[in-house]
Amino acid sequence: MIQEKDKEEISDSEKIGEYSFDVMPFNCDCAGRLTIPVLGTHLLNCARKHALEHGFDHTCPNPEHLTWVLSRLVVESDRRPRIDEHITLRTWVRRVYRNFCDREYEIIDSTGTTIGKVFSVWALLDYKTRRSAGFGKDSVLEEQAIDKELGIDSPRRVRVKTETPAAVHKVVYSDLDLNGHTNSMKYPEFFLNLFSPEAYTAGIPARIEVQYINESRYGEQLQFYMDQKEEAEYHIEARTDDGKPISKGVVIFK
Amino acid sequence: MIQEKDKEEISDSEKIGEYSFDVMPFNCDCAGRLTIPVLGTHLLNCARKHALEHGFDHTCPNPEHLTWVLSRLVVESDRRPRIDEHITLRTWVRRVYRNFCDREYEIIDSTGTTIGKVFSVWALLDYKTRRSAGFGKDSVLEEQAIDKELGIDSPRRVRVKTETPAAVHKVVYSDLDLNGHTNSMKYPEFFLNLFSPEAYTAGIPARIEVQYINESRYGEQLQFYMDQKEEAEYHIEARTDDGKPISKGVVIFK
Repeated sequence: MIQEKDKEEISDSEKIGEYSFDVMPFNCDCAGRLTIPVLGTHLLNCARKHALEHGFDHTCPNPEHLTWVLSRLVVESDRRPRIDEHITLRTWVRRVYRNFCDREYEIIDSTGTTIGKVFSVWALLDYKTRRSAGFGKDSVLEEQAIDKELGIDSPRRVRVKTETPAAVHKVVYSDLDLNGHTNSMKYPEFFLNLFSPEAYTAGIPARIEVQYINESRYGEQLQFYMDQKEEAEYHIEARTDDGKPISKGVVIFK
Repeated sequence: MIQEKDKEEISDSEKIGEYSFDVMPFNCDCAGRLTIPVLGTHLLNCARKHALEHGFDHTCPNPEHLTWVLSRLVVESDRRPRIDEHITLRTWVRRVYRNFCDREYEIIDSTGTTIGKVFSVWALLDYKTRRSAGFGKDSVLEEQAIDKELGIDSPRRVRVKTETPAAVHKVVYSDLDLNGHTNSMKYPEFFLNLFSPEAYTAGIPARIEVQYINESRYGEQLQFYMDQKEEAEYHIEARTDDGKPISKGVVIFK
């Protein structure tokens, strides 16, 4: 029995990927904290490394025409790392269901303290048909899922009523990713740009949620609509000029 | 004599800093190449590491109120690294004169081939008085300078005649650095955003020059004026709404 249990535990820990990086000064914001887009880029790169190491990577282009796309992202952190801190990201597959896969992360500082948690939902896209591909019955992915409780609230329902945009952004070259669409880490960046630097010296965006609805392309003009729900909770919608929904999100300051 | 020469050579090589990084997929542009802002951030971080290791770092804030500021940057590269490439940056102080210090870099790929060269000019700013501080007579900096020929053309004289801006950008939160000014790597990003994605799949911005003239701040609106000088050479000026010059630059596609 003990042997069985040990075997199971080792097996679970083998499914967890651990990746470290140092916080560089030129990746910090005006409040001296690691920026969300740079943290987010590390999250994406770790997801890819973890998938590569565990046999379920799909780097575009490939013969199966498959690529992982982010559907939801929630980043919670009461403390954002500062210059020269050594940070470890731990990541694992939490659940595989229908056409989605939940991936979770812990953000750990050099003292071993968990300073942040991340919940993300991914789909496997067939980039020829632009449709969700599903994972197949004998996917290696399901074997990778582990039953580890992260303790992060589910994403909120986002509803924005205001009809006047808080900001407009035209998609430029530096917004684009390898596939020629707006990089998924640009949306939290756009959302955070709706606030002034004072918001970041007075507090910290302790929870950020992003829903990815449609891709946006070079030259498209994104309109950002924002409603303040509670004292420090903001709901945001990004739409194109002709009303196509692109992304929704929540920012909560603490 | 041979011993003398050996000693000198070792001494020079000790003055050179070598720093490596891997090109991550989410740091690549729509043409699959490492982006200039991400490369530039590595250049800045290497400059700081090299200065720290050689005793002339000034990380803001500090008791002397000194901080390094970038005055000029020239990045030349015929080949920009792609996903998963392992890149080494070599950097050294080239020359110390008046209130300026020239720093140079080589960008080396995993086969040992130099794929890029960087020339940069720095000044030491007293951030209380906002004036150039100079290096003092007994600076450790001059001892660090080495007479190594990089072979990169001097920056061009930039003159833009057009009166119609090619683009306008309002400085947002994500543009700001630790000091609350627009991050120096944002200017090459703004310049490159004047071109469409097709320019980057058809060619490569093989030479980028940036002159840093004045700092810009949150909420300021930058106007970008651009003249095409030769078939693939573009001269750019960034000014605020009221005509204050902020930055000038050149982009040459190959």
